[in-house]
Amino acid sequence: MIAGRPTLENWMAPPGNRWAFRHVRELLPTARVRRGDALELPEAIAPGLATLPFRDDAGGEHRLEPFLAESFGDACVVLHRGAVVYEWYAPGGASTDRHLLFSVTKSVVGVLAGAVASVGLVDLEAPIVRYVPEVAGGAYGDATVRHLLDMTTAIDFVEDYSPGPDVRAYRESTGWYPSEQPSPGMHAYLAAMRRGDREHGERFRYLSPNTDVAGWVLERATGLPLAEALQRYLWAPLGAEHDGDLTLDRFGAPRAAGGLSTTARDLARFGLLVAEGGRGVVPAAFIEELRFGGDRAQWADGDYATFLPGGGYRSFWYQPNVAGDPGVTCAVGIHGQLLYVDAARSVVVVKQSSWPGPSGDPADRLALAAARAAARFLDV
Amino acid sequence: MIAGRPTLENWMAPPGNRWAFRHVRELLPTARVRRGDALELPEAIAPGLATLPFRDDAGGEHRLEPFLAESFGDACVVLHRGAVVYEWYAPGGASTDRHLLFSVTKSVVGVLAGAVASVGLVDLEAPIVRYVPEVAGGAYGDATVRHLLDMTTAIDFVEDYSPGPDVRAYRESTGWYPSEQPSPGMHAYLAAMRRGDREHGERFRYLSPNTDVAGWVLERATGLPLAEALQRYLWAPLGAEHDGDLTLDRFGAPRAAGGLSTTARDLARFGLLVAEGGRGVVPAAFIEELRFGGDRAQWADGDYATFLPGGGYRSFWYQPNVAGDPGVTCAVGIHGQLLYVDAARSVVVVKQSSWPGPSGDPADRLALAAARAAARFLDV
Repeated sequence: MIAGRPTLENWMAPPGNRWAFRHVRELLPTARVRRGDALELPEAIAPGLATLPFRDDAGGEHRLEPFLAESFGDACVVLHRGAVVYEWYAPGGASTDRHLLFSVTKSVVGVLAGAVASVGLVDLEAPIVRYVPEVAGGAYGDATVRHLLDMTTAIDFVEDYSPGPDVRAYRESTGWYPSEQPSPGMHAYLAAMRRGDREHGERFRYLSPNTDVAGWVLERATGLPLAEALQRYLWAPLGAEHDGDLTLDRFGAPRAAGGLSTTARDLARFGLLVAEGGRGVVPAAFIEELRFGGDRAQWADGDYATFLPGGGYRSFWYQPNVAGDPGVTCAVGIHGQLLYVDAARSVVVVKQSSWPGPSGDPADRLALAAARAAARFLDV
Repeated sequence: MIAGRPTLENWMAPPGNRWAFRHVRELLPTARVRRGDALELPEAIAPGLATLPFRDDAGGEHRLEPFLAESFGDACVVLHRGAVVYEWYAPGGASTDRHLLFSVTKSVVGVLAGAVASVGLVDLEAPIVRYVPEVAGGAYGDATVRHLLDMTTAIDFVEDYSPGPDVRAYRESTGWYPSEQPSPGMHAYLAAMRRGDREHGERFRYLSPNTDVAGWVLERATGLPLAEALQRYLWAPLGAEHDGDLTLDRFGAPRAAGGLSTTARDLARFGLLVAEGGRGVVPAAFIEELRFGGDRAQWADGDYATFLPGGGYRSFWYQPNVAGDPGVTCAVGIHGQLLYVDAARSVVVVKQSSWPGPSGDPADRLALAAARAAARFLDV
């Protein structure tokens, strides 16, 4: 037992979050996501990458490795053409540490949806109730799986990580926060959600419960617990070296929106699968959508337009759409989680962090700038 | 999510316990006990073992494989001279399933104590307070580590698995049962325990909290969380093929008395380490004590004298002391967990089960009779 170890009451707050994000399974029930035969990652040398300069929005200069340490980084892995060209862990960290991915989990679930659809087990355009009739009476009763994947549902929910009352009640239902009374669980919470003032499909609103419903759909479609579906259709086939951990509520419902912990290298392997067009595990056309398929008009009208001006969102992946970087797609999680995939340059960047607070545009944009600089640097 | 999946409220009750005992990490927080380089187990043939007959106390005849199925068996592995001569899993089971060991965990912790003592980090004859000053004000304040290992403390506790009020309060403190109020945790519970009406060292009384205190001592002695101490000094060196899972309370205190889950094969590898005299990982002299070192007079005066007449107990291991089987030692856990080591014959027998109820002398004795028959059969 560690002195000063966090508990479920305070695990996401600093300074204990640095430990907690790498030991989630010691705080909550988790399911094992089994690894496969490890895809070997050769190592290559990229002189200058550690000291690579890049600029923040205000024009201030940073350099990669000092930035990692200053920005509460826990791990960083950069792949170029399938080889590890840079790898960094904060003091006390190790390449076998599983680190909570937070919302990068969503992007894993998005790719899983593509894999499961490709074998005909789920129709991504179908109504959710075809798979999960339990939501018929709630806001999800007339939405489709596609609405979930693209975050265009019209549920009544405020995604305020401070946390606001919606996020608090939601996290209690998922087991992430302690609850005074035994919680009826995440599925009961999701099934009872109410409709907001719009129609499904009208606009982009980033709402985490959507992904948990998508996870529920995938469980029903595959007939497997989500951890096993992940293992079978994605985690083992992509060549993960280590088991992942997926948090569960007290009834076993998995937190598809943010509950997966993996090593940095395995997350990089997942990015490599995307960079390589799905490698037959996921259809290339589905991967193309993650790179180019976002609706820019909906994005411009949505909550995150200032975070990525001109961006897009498709199947739980972000497209920055920055000039000079066509087809870049990325996955972002609170507290500084980033997976950046520049398929055109065959570059994958992973950063795992323990920011003291959940989020902040400048910090997210700075991490993106670092990844973008690395990709451009490696392209020469 | 599994339909009808147990929750923390009912996970030890049938029929859900069969699932729960192989999915403990999905119900409680757990620490990973890392594997090492897997010790290869060759396979050998032992014709006739599956149908081997053996007798119960009343003279009724049973045969090995039908017995496994009838007695709620989940897994069975038999080693002879280091080779797997028999392996069986109930339908739906797999060799990668981790299964809760219950009190067989104690015997793992006992061997760990020997390993840690051999490198000079703990003195097994020392007072507990040398390592855990927190217990100074309670019943453990004047007991030694040896009293813990041999179950001769005089604490006021009734080990009634029905469960009685002591076991209920104890399990709430360990996170095994839900509690209405947030629990102050296992360590607070252990530190506050009261003395019974005897002196430490006077008699054998099998009381699970003793092992949790021993686990606490080993954490302090090694400066490591118990899962890491286990990994470093025992689990990796013995050649475990798979990570184990160790349950934690909400503050991270490990359930040394019963919280470890391992595969059947890894438990057999652990038994093999004992059968082979500790292989340098644990001193041969310490292993000899597990085989011959129990105090028969104390045993005869203790709670379990009818379970193993003429038996003994040393460092969390049972010695049946049956004529014709010198030096046999074994580990026993509720709901049908057994590790039987006949070092003289180089035989190890593992049985993992999900009995509907926690325990029962006839069922435990029957499993022992099966293991004994297998060992004698393989000796010819």
